[in-house]
Amino acid sequence: MHTDLVAALDIGGTKIAGALVDGHGSILVRAQRATPAQEDGDTVMRAVEDVLGELAATPLWGRARALGIGSAGPVDASAGTVSPVNVPGWRDYPLVERARAATGGLPVVLIGDGVAITAAEHWQGAARGHDNALCMVVSTGVGGGLVLGGRLHPGPTGNAGHIGHISVDLDGDPCPCGSRGCVERIASGPNIARRALENGWRPGPDGDTSAAAVAAAARAGDAVAVASFERAARALAAGIAATATLVEIDIAVIGGGVGKAGDVLLAPLRQALADYATLSFVRHLTVVPARMGTDAGLVGAAAAALEARANTTAAGV
Amino acid sequence: MHTDLVAALDIGGTKIAGALVDGHGSILVRAQRATPAQEDGDTVMRAVEDVLGELAATPLWGRARALGIGSAGPVDASAGTVSPVNVPGWRDYPLVERARAATGGLPVVLIGDGVAITAAEHWQGAARGHDNALCMVVSTGVGGGLVLGGRLHPGPTGNAGHIGHISVDLDGDPCPCGSRGCVERIASGPNIARRALENGWRPGPDGDTSAAAVAAAARAGDAVAVASFERAARALAAGIAATATLVEIDIAVIGGGVGKAGDVLLAPLRQALADYATLSFVRHLTVVPARMGTDAGLVGAAAAALEARANTTAAGV
Repeated sequence: MHTDLVAALDIGGTKIAGALVDGHGSILVRAQRATPAQEDGDTVMRAVEDVLGELAATPLWGRARALGIGSAGPVDASAGTVSPVNVPGWRDYPLVERARAATGGLPVVLIGDGVAITAAEHWQGAARGHDNALCMVVSTGVGGGLVLGGRLHPGPTGNAGHIGHISVDLDGDPCPCGSRGCVERIASGPNIARRALENGWRPGPDGDTSAAAVAAAARAGDAVAVASFERAARALAAGIAATATLVEIDIAVIGGGVGKAGDVLLAPLRQALADYATLSFVRHLTVVPARMGTDAGLVGAAAAALEARANTTAAGV
Repeated sequence: MHTDLVAALDIGGTKIAGALVDGHGSILVRAQRATPAQEDGDTVMRAVEDVLGELAATPLWGRARALGIGSAGPVDASAGTVSPVNVPGWRDYPLVERARAATGGLPVVLIGDGVAITAAEHWQGAARGHDNALCMVVSTGVGGGLVLGGRLHPGPTGNAGHIGHISVDLDGDPCPCGSRGCVERIASGPNIARRALENGWRPGPDGDTSAAAVAAAARAGDAVAVASFERAARALAAGIAATATLVEIDIAVIGGGVGKAGDVLLAPLRQALADYATLSFVRHLTVVPARMGTDAGLVGAAAAALEARANTTAAGV
């Protein structure tokens, strides 16, 4: 039986990945290009078109009914434009219109990359079966997305769930976003490493000063490394508790490179959560590691396209 | 024409107000009792039953099709119970079941009081026409509620939007809720007054140490009073910006006694919001004063009952 497929794009500052995905979330065809992140906007778009062209050249393309795009943010789903921080050539770039043209007119759904990851975890991963969830990526940056009432909540512009840039320390250090004391400013990988170095942690003979190296030192008992992860954990806990208090979630899923630190992060995070998530309706919140791998962005973009398509069909359009 | 009505209850630590409300939000009949807040649970319930009984004795009662209840929180809409902080006799008290029995079996909708105020502002007040809004009460405590995608978002337990207890200062002062640096701990009326007194502000000959007195002093140019409101404004701004960053709202409505301080609060709040709401999709957020008066709780409870009824009817149940 020839069932319908959707096309999916995962656009980041390093690579542009594309796929054809079926209704079970299986990736049937892949294509990928490096992101020419420092080039002008149309050059970046040509890389996207190359990925789409490679997908379109396969026999399965004829079954693609929609295109889902998860992009580095900020995005503006209402305008169909993107302005990824790491791709300066794209500012209010009309990605949706260009992608629609490149696909011969497929309906296009645009969401931020944190929202895409969330769609994937809700469909196939750790948030499956949860009607109210926060999914996070803790990595070079901190991003996220929300599931509310059983459905993805991208918000009007596709950026909702952007927990990395809520302030949990209103007098805290300035954040590159212009605010202060943001979760990302305290809990991202580079900030975990920076804080450890500032407080006297020194890397091993390989000179590795990544958050992964700090995590290894923490596992080996280095007190400064442990303290840097504990501080990140407190900021994440305050942010997760704030989210639960605002919208009522019962699970927080943590992915990304720093999320892979495991108990070095999760143990103090669960402990700190008890300090900040105090009201009766947030006290049972659980924190679990992400289950989706590197395909989460593609699978989530596909999920968003499938959900939009289902809603359109249900509305009789 | 005899159109349908809904009954509404607004239950607080001081009074229990009831009304019959029509589809336009007009209050046709009222009843009220003092809350016997220090009595046992069944005594408090008898006051509720007295209010409902007074409404039921009117000729219009026959047209009431549902009962909406906005209650001091925390509530648990999923269990039908309430545990208001200021009414110790009610802990996990089965208010929905008892109210249903007292009304001869009307369908009952339970929400927190912050959610009720939000429903009222969205239906008839300052958030009208806004699909994504945060409405707040800044008073003895700080509460709130959310409208997302054009609809009230009470969350599974009816407490969503509880902005007073998100931490914006993770190392801050302990809050009675058990957390630290909560918005309420910095921005509530009693905390505005406490901070002013601690920093050397002295009341006038009448000895009034309320937040309203501090607001009057600020208006007259007292630097300590101004600073206390500015600090409250920063905490509110950080909380509002966090909410916008998490769920994408375009308006924040501020009500309650402290909200009535007007520009003493709103001017520094709008200024601080520019410091914390920095991402492209939250930068156009506006802050406005509430428009609903003391009936907001009743009107909002009625709105929630009407919305639930409309959804039930639409679903063909």
